[in-house]
Amino acid sequence: MFTKTIRVTSQNEGDVIDLTDEVKKVVKDSGIKTGLVHLFVQHSTAALTTIEFEPGVLQDLKCALSVLAPDNADYAHNTRWGDGNGRSHVKAALVGPSLMVPIENNNLLCGTWQQIVLLELDVNAGRERTIVCTVSGD
Amino acid sequence: MFTKTIRVTSQNEGDVIDLTDEVKKVVKDSGIKTGLVHLFVQHSTAALTTIEFEPGVLQDLKCALSVLAPDNADYAHNTRWGDGNGRSHVKAALVGPSLMVPIENNNLLCGTWQQIVLLELDVNAGRERTIVCTVSGD
Amino acid sequence: MFTKTIRVTSQNEGDVIDLTDEVKKVVKDSGIKTGLVHLFVQHSTAALTTIEFEPGVLQDLKCALSVLAPDNADYAHNTRWGDGNGRSHVKAALVGPSLMVPIENNNLLCGTWQQIVLLELDVNAGRERTIVCTVSGD
Repeated sequence: MFTKTIRVTSQNEGDVIDLTDEVKKVVKDSGIKTGLVHLFVQHSTAALTTIEFEPGVLQDLKCALSVLAPDNADYAHNTRWGDGNGRSHVKAALVGPSLMVPIENNNLLCGTWQQIVLLELDVNAGRERTIVCTVSGD
Repeated sequence: MFTKTIRVTSQNEGDVIDLTDEVKKVVKDSGIKTGLVHLFVQHSTAALTTIEFEPGVLQDLKCALSVLAPDNADYAHNTRWGDGNGRSHVKAALVGPSLMVPIENNNLLCGTWQQIVLLELDVNAGRERTIVCTVSGD
Repeated sequence: MFTKTIRVTSQNEGDVIDLTDEVKKVVKDSGIKTGLVHLFVQHSTAALTTIEFEPGVLQDLKCALSVLAPDNADYAHNTRWGDGNGRSHVKAALVGPSLMVPIENNNLLCGTWQQIVLLELDVNAGRERTIVCTVSGD
């Protein structure tokens, strides 16, 4: 097993950051030909998934997440702690912090229109986000 | 590690395809007694999860996904590209492309009412979908 | 690979059970220093994710899940089987049964405010839930 950490800095709530090239670099560095790469974001107001990295789709995803957790709703978390990111926690828990992608020929087996992304969901963005990558295989 | 690809062809948007028997076959073929099988769908308008494979539940799931991404909403992706599958991308990103299930006695450790399924979310269905299976263990 | 089963009993629909300490114990018992722990809940009306284990956030998550699958909606599953847990199946399929967390120094690499939780989604709660843990690494 080979472990490496990716760090990215977001600017705004709703930012979607394409991690595909960084993850490819980790896989290259691992020297593993056939196997799996696991990604885990160590934060409760960010999440990982795959998506076609196209501005229209990214905007549509933002709308769908707002259906689940609208900007103007009352959040018990906000009432208790006053930090305003209740909606961020909810979205992150539903999308999830963990993703795993297969490897062949020392490269990712993603689809052509399928990029690996971090969703910055916190209202207090502009922060560094840490993603732990673990590569296993032969 | 043992790798094999499953290919299925969907008919319509909203199709839910039970992959459990195919995945069991892959696990059998791997000869691995104790471990994990990882599944990854290589497309940005399909997704993987587990569900009780019962027509009522499948219909209910379809309704819930339409709450997130309604059929008649305006999608920025559609405006830009005119291919009409903005809702498909959004649903797929939220459900996710990746699933991992434990193995014992060379068999899946799913619950009795818990099947492994592919969700065909594209409005342009009737296409072949590729799922990469990776089995690891002893 | 090291396998162990965690069993917890829920009280009510919507219960969120913090599994972090139990999972840490499994990782300790495995003796694995660097690697991954995979969790899988063997039920179609429960799910796994990470969240800040704070009562406000947990209540907010419950609200968001009710947007997806409202209590009073008509469910085809309920009409067919009369067991009233259509909404439970839908929520569980969307959150997902599977989670994987990296390990370093024989400990979980979660964020400070990021706990591993089981969501009890069944209307018929008060039942034992089984989570299969698989630890791999060195």
